[in-house]
Amino acid sequence: MKCALAALMMFCLPFGVMAQTTGGMATGDLGLVIERASGSLVVIDRSDRAAIGRIEGLGDLSHASLTYGPDERFAYVFGRDGGLSKVDILERKVVARTIQAGNSIGGAISDDGRLIAVSNYEPGGIKVFDADTLELVADIPAAGKTVGLVDVPGRRFAWAVWNTGEVFLGDFSGAKPVVRMIGNAGANPFDAVLTDDAHTFLVGLFGEKGVTAFDLWSDAPEPQKFLTDYGKTGEDMPVYKMPHLQSWAFTEGQYALPAVGRHEVLWVDRETQAQVASTPVHGQPVFIIAQPASPFVWVNFATPLNDVVQVIDSRSHQVVATLNPGKAILHMEFAPRGAEVWISSRDDNQVLIYDTRTRMKLAEVPAAAPSGIFFTARAHQTGL
Amino acid sequence: MKCALAALMMFCLPFGVMAQTTGGMATGDLGLVIERASGSLVVIDRSDRAAIGRIEGLGDLSHASLTYGPDERFAYVFGRDGGLSKVDILERKVVARTIQAGNSIGGAISDDGRLIAVSNYEPGGIKVFDADTLELVADIPAAGKTVGLVDVPGRRFAWAVWNTGEVFLGDFSGAKPVVRMIGNAGANPFDAVLTDDAHTFLVGLFGEKGVTAFDLWSDAPEPQKFLTDYGKTGEDMPVYKMPHLQSWAFTEGQYALPAVGRHEVLWVDRETQAQVASTPVHGQPVFIIAQPASPFVWVNFATPLNDVVQVIDSRSHQVVATLNPGKAILHMEFAPRGAEVWISSRDDNQVLIYDTRTRMKLAEVPAAAPSGIFFTARAHQTGL
Repeated sequence: MKCALAALMMFCLPFGVMAQTTGGMATGDLGLVIERASGSLVVIDRSDRAAIGRIEGLGDLSHASLTYGPDERFAYVFGRDGGLSKVDILERKVVARTIQAGNSIGGAISDDGRLIAVSNYEPGGIKVFDADTLELVADIPAAGKTVGLVDVPGRRFAWAVWNTGEVFLGDFSGAKPVVRMIGNAGANPFDAVLTDDAHTFLVGLFGEKGVTAFDLWSDAPEPQKFLTDYGKTGEDMPVYKMPHLQSWAFTEGQYALPAVGRHEVLWVDRETQAQVASTPVHGQPVFIIAQPASPFVWVNFATPLNDVVQVIDSRSHQVVATLNPGKAILHMEFAPRGAEVWISSRDDNQVLIYDTRTRMKLAEVPAAAPSGIFFTARAHQTGL
Repeated sequence: MKCALAALMMFCLPFGVMAQTTGGMATGDLGLVIERASGSLVVIDRSDRAAIGRIEGLGDLSHASLTYGPDERFAYVFGRDGGLSKVDILERKVVARTIQAGNSIGGAISDDGRLIAVSNYEPGGIKVFDADTLELVADIPAAGKTVGLVDVPGRRFAWAVWNTGEVFLGDFSGAKPVVRMIGNAGANPFDAVLTDDAHTFLVGLFGEKGVTAFDLWSDAPEPQKFLTDYGKTGEDMPVYKMPHLQSWAFTEGQYALPAVGRHEVLWVDRETQAQVASTPVHGQPVFIIAQPASPFVWVNFATPLNDVVQVIDSRSHQVVATLNPGKAILHMEFAPRGAEVWISSRDDNQVLIYDTRTRMKLAEVPAAAPSGIFFTARAHQTGL
């Protein structure tokens, strides 16, 4: 299988020559696509709608994410095997790598670009590394698995603990880290997300119904539970894939969030935290992503209904388009100003590029079993 | 005067050697500072808090702005002399330049990065250029001076006409431009701004009181006038500098806007368009800029009170800090995730870097009579 993939890649992606020509290259319109089966990354050029290189040797990327340094040259890749890798997009190679835990589930970079925090299951807790060298700066244990790690302005990070429901805010701006428990979210937080203005940290619960919000602009945040009908599902509807809360879209004064286990998108008023609408959709939503500078959100779905993408208007809460881009649609990434969306089709070994206005396909870029797509513009966004 | 400035620059800014070393450089954390008296730009590195080069030969930059291409390599500079210049940040030189009108007042780049539109006073109208070559693509006349030009998703631009009050939306996505008048804003629009979600185009009026909003998500936008007490001022308070509407901050569900001619910042609810508060401040506000991922806005002031910067909390509408950074504070630019703010002090020939959390000065970067500061992260924002 690996051999077949490698052969496919050799054939489809003649990167050899281009990979050398990195002198004087701007990085604002580049990106990386995770090739989940082969532990590699494809370097993509958004303006040219092309793959321009590959970086290999990233370990187990079957569940992986990455974040960018402020200069959009270096990416930090968090792999399922606990590997933290620093890659140089210009030189197209891994420049540092450490196996920092048994099982990591994601990470974040501090607002000043100096620190990388990694969230771990085995053992629990978070580890913080120097972004230049990947030297360990701080090791913060926890009484269980950590989830929902995000960067918070002021060289801070926030996270939750699955086993205890505790939510922590860690300040790494001084000589020694100052970590404080800011409240208990409830039973078994499974993920968390920070609003785009860094105002509200939203923690989703698995052990009970509801979502718990913390006001991070406050000096003494209080847990506020809402949507107390949310989260658990009837026995007749198995959850094929736990939705990521990172998939919550923020648009038109609302949160759009995936109903766990149901074929539905829920709309919550951002101000009152009351549910205002629900939209029946094709399958169990996985990612719900706002198309920048538009009223629309795009949704993909859990297996076995994962060959469809739907577009919903956040004003009417109606599905306005249903696309069939390809097989096993795992992720969508918008050009930062919204003109295009890049969609990974794992089982077609393609990244598909759609015009967001016409919703027509513009191009295809080959990649081996692509999952996450990450444009370098993420370097400039809080909470990603 | 020019000679003295040149001498000062030669002495203060030893760029000669560094300007050659551009190979393999990422561009995500770079920026440009306009040197208004000498028609030049300083290239700045945000991570190093340093000036790393200079680009000369930009003509009259006494009232100038710029925008970036999507790869964050090329900037398009709009000068008062009608000059449109394309500069290469990596090579640090002007790569194309055209005197496209007698007097230009700003420009914008299409969401796909392919077109540059320039807004002109002499003659009025807008001109649209190919972003690669600066070849003229379209010449759209108007019955007067054009103001408030912004990019709108879908390869579109919107603008207003001072003399007639007309507001236009131009679609340049097809073979021929389609320009339509979407409504009349009122007497003498002096500037306009697009909200960060590209939803609302706000037009400020000079010939009558009020602000007129257009819903650009609608197929048939209707002009909606609000704040009808806004704009004109008593005879006893001369307007030292007309505030730019680009200075409107969007935060906490509000617009923060400068009271014309008064020592006040006004707060308008984004949903209801009703004024909710006003904040007495040190002088006549010029720029009111939201600190990213925070509740704060930062304000600078018109001459002669232009040596002060104030910070206002958008929740309480209270001034929470008053800084005295230097002489003739003309502009402020935040690091995209808000950790720092760079402040130009024209008469100190310095750009001052402040930590936004401690509000203490971190560093100074020399520049000759600096005005606008522009980080490359703007490439990824709609309406800038």
